[in-house]
Amino acid sequence: GELTHIGPDGRARMVDVSAKATTAREAVAQGTVRMAPETLKLALSRDTKKGDPLGVAELAGIMGAKKTADLIPLCHPLPLTGVKVEIAPHETETALTVTARVKTAGQTGVEMEALTAVSTACLTLYDMLKAVDKAMVIGGIELIEKTGGKSGDYRKNS
Amino acid sequence: GELTHIGPDGRARMVDVSAKATTAREAVAQGTVRMAPETLKLALSRDTKKGDPLGVAELAGIMGAKKTADLIPLCHPLPLTGVKVEIAPHETETALTVTARVKTAGQTGVEMEALTAVSTACLTLYDMLKAVDKAMVIGGIELIEKTGGKSGDYRKNS
Amino acid sequence: GELTHIGPDGRARMVDVSAKATTAREAVAQGTVRMAPETLKLALSRDTKKGDPLGVAELAGIMGAKKTADLIPLCHPLPLTGVKVEIAPHETETALTVTARVKTAGQTGVEMEALTAVSTACLTLYDMLKAVDKAMVIGGIELIEKTGGKSGDYRKNS
Amino acid sequence: GELTHIGPDGRARMVDVSAKATTAREAVAQGTVRMAPETLKLALSRDTKKGDPLGVAELAGIMGAKKTADLIPLCHPLPLTGVKVEIAPHETETALTVTARVKTAGQTGVEMEALTAVSTACLTLYDMLKAVDKAMVIGGIELIEKTGGKSGDYRKNS
Amino acid sequence: GELTHIGPDGRARMVDVSAKATTAREAVAQGTVRMAPETLKLALSRDTKKGDPLGVAELAGIMGAKKTADLIPLCHPLPLTGVKVEIAPHETETALTVTARVKTAGQTGVEMEALTAVSTACLTLYDMLKAVDKAMVIGGIELIEKTGGKSGDYRKNS
Amino acid sequence: GELTHIGPDGRARMVDVSAKATTAREAVAQGTVRMAPETLKLALSRDTKKGDPLGVAELAGIMGAKKTADLIPLCHPLPLTGVKVEIAPHETETALTVTARVKTAGQTGVEMEALTAVSTACLTLYDMLKAVDKAMVIGGIELIEKTGGKSGDYRKNS
Repeated sequence: GELTHIGPDGRARMVDVSAKATTAREAVAQGTVRMAPETLKLALSRDTKKGDPLGVAELAGIMGAKKTADLIPLCHPLPLTGVKVEIAPHETETALTVTARVKTAGQTGVEMEALTAVSTACLTLYDMLKAVDKAMVIGGIELIEKTGGKSGDYRKNS
Repeated sequence: GELTHIGPDGRARMVDVSAKATTAREAVAQGTVRMAPETLKLALSRDTKKGDPLGVAELAGIMGAKKTADLIPLCHPLPLTGVKVEIAPHETETALTVTARVKTAGQTGVEMEALTAVSTACLTLYDMLKAVDKAMVIGGIELIEKTGGKSGDYRKNS
Repeated sequence: GELTHIGPDGRARMVDVSAKATTAREAVAQGTVRMAPETLKLALSRDTKKGDPLGVAELAGIMGAKKTADLIPLCHPLPLTGVKVEIAPHETETALTVTARVKTAGQTGVEMEALTAVSTACLTLYDMLKAVDKAMVIGGIELIEKTGGKSGDYRKNS
Repeated sequence: GELTHIGPDGRARMVDVSAKATTAREAVAQGTVRMAPETLKLALSRDTKKGDPLGVAELAGIMGAKKTADLIPLCHPLPLTGVKVEIAPHETETALTVTARVKTAGQTGVEMEALTAVSTACLTLYDMLKAVDKAMVIGGIELIEKTGGKSGDYRKNS
Repeated sequence: GELTHIGPDGRARMVDVSAKATTAREAVAQGTVRMAPETLKLALSRDTKKGDPLGVAELAGIMGAKKTADLIPLCHPLPLTGVKVEIAPHETETALTVTARVKTAGQTGVEMEALTAVSTACLTLYDMLKAVDKAMVIGGIELIEKTGGKSGDYRKNS
Repeated sequence: GELTHIGPDGRARMVDVSAKATTAREAVAQGTVRMAPETLKLALSRDTKKGDPLGVAELAGIMGAKKTADLIPLCHPLPLTGVKVEIAPHETETALTVTARVKTAGQTGVEMEALTAVSTACLTLYDMLKAVDKAMVIGGIELIEKTGGKSGDYRKNS
């Protein structure tokens, strides 16, 4: 597998993608913040001491996507052509679900940008709500699907 | 509770902490990255296409703590007096556990800094290992304990 | 006046404030974005192609305050203890008024932080609304008042 | 008009420009800083306590253009191919005029980059001169012209 | 020579590269950190109070390359397609040698990115080792070779 | 010596300075850029294709000092109370000498801030002048003196 390509020196590097084609790429990631029922109710009222937690967290997620190459040491800096972050109540759990969709035309994928958007939005929800609930848990952050690029499409097994 | 203090206008704000005392504050947060057994084996060998995933992720976590106020819209910018990030195999699951401990002397706590350090380290582990495993899941990101500050100490229920 | 203290070499410098006392400081700044009546109506409906322009701009203003020392070459980096940005319709003009209030405990004032918050919020309003109105004009950005520090309080002449 | 395209959910988003062509784009923006006559005289002498205010502000404007996507939440990150910022005395008012010209080859325009360059240069002029004049007013920040892109060229009515 | 093209106004500018072709470009830069023999021995043991100095500095160098346009006022922001930083003992001196290789497909070269990577790695080595040796000297930072672009290839005279 | 305090786990960490006193600290660092005689003449004329290289580099050095904790992975973020960068012709060599003086009141020293200011100014000189001379060499970057803090004052042996 890919492991046979491991460099002989074991050094960290930003992988050389110079020879890869520039193609349309897209990634979707998801995560959740589990919280007490009254915290969820407060969040959905969109009215806390710090403002509307869902709106602020969605915006923070979009801005977080733009900081990915700054945060993740070996990520390639990429222009992004579209970012969307949506926060909604989880279908079955007492939780909020964050979904991020990121697009680019580039030589490498945007999985990390989508995951960073989700992660930043989850952290922001925690920050907005922590005055009333410090026991919230961020979890289930994973890649849902990615398209474009030589390595082929990926879709999470359901 | 704290909700009675909600501002009348519902606007997002960076809460005024001017009147709070500057005290020693500390926070510990934790999270995990679940992965396939062979991915974990590869991670623990500390030898991947991009270098040593644990070492790189620990460093990214420390640097992430310093970017907290840049990422989380309403966080106060704070000087930090100490940051430690440790990644180790999970005791029972096929996973890596990230633990971050952050200290400051300030007017507000460092919970968000500890959570951001954990979150950034988890994302970096994903990035370092995604060439062999796109199905990894980041989870269980939570505050373990915090000390210092008027609102009192907090310790996660176990 | 202060001009007699001009350095003999004419070089740019970050002025040495080491000997100044750390005191509570506060600054308020204001600015406006003039626009067509239908643009203002759209903005106040808080429902545009890019989302709620007022909410997004208020948040951008707060985050902008935190970037002041990064943007303004000779500004001292400062911890901030409170930032508030409010956008409201102008009393007499077809315009939105942005007001920012910034607090710190530091050795130098936060005028630039308040002005940068206003400026960033105005730019963000332009960005949120430019799809329907490219002729908007940002203006009237000025310091309304500042308190704290050796140079004394300042209040704009009205 | 464009308003019929408003998303059904009212969420903030970074608009998807994936399908837009990469074309040469250019934008020119302008703004002024009004000040007392003696402040203007000092500024034009290019010799203040903090150095040459015009030179420093022009440089800050160029660097500000590069920070646009970091400051304005929903701006697309863009490579820039040219930035020029010029500060000169206003023709009729006791003021300095800042003019910024920004170029790129991209899928979206550089209006915000030009406006951010102007705004950052104006704030820097304020910072460089505020020791002698706190009553300066930044104003008249507007788009002068833009070329390139599907939405067509724009030129300010004069 | 190139000097005949000097602008008539002497202003700092980000040179307009809009008309340049997008081509594959690469640059290699090098630098050294001279230190006491016992410091070098400690560094090569990769085990100091702050961790493995070589591994941390290599990573800092890669991340530094991504910050070039943020640090160097008139540098164009560029996507990078590959960055590699290697630190090894100098062949003849009591010193560590840092070598950085940076690639892009762009309208301007990556010499500054390679030099910034080297410089950041050298500073990080200093930081990691300064507890035992404050007299280290960073030197010999220079461009070794560059390829791609209209101005032709460059190779340091040896 | 200090080496007996090396942590048992070999991990990178931001050293805990919580228990250190906040004292006035200052550091001076220096470096040079060696260049061809005609390049030096051009630099000293302060009139190149990109503007005044000395003025731009001095400003970049000051701004670089503020980015130290962002660039150097294990540096503590610190407020700075004064930064001065001066560039002058070297006394005996065909070179420019950069000197940076940085002050803070903090729990840790500002050696890295002074060295980063010097390094950033040197890189900027290279960038401003590289159109006419790619063979310039940055060197001699070292700490000249530091005062304040428990570890005592340091002065370079001359």
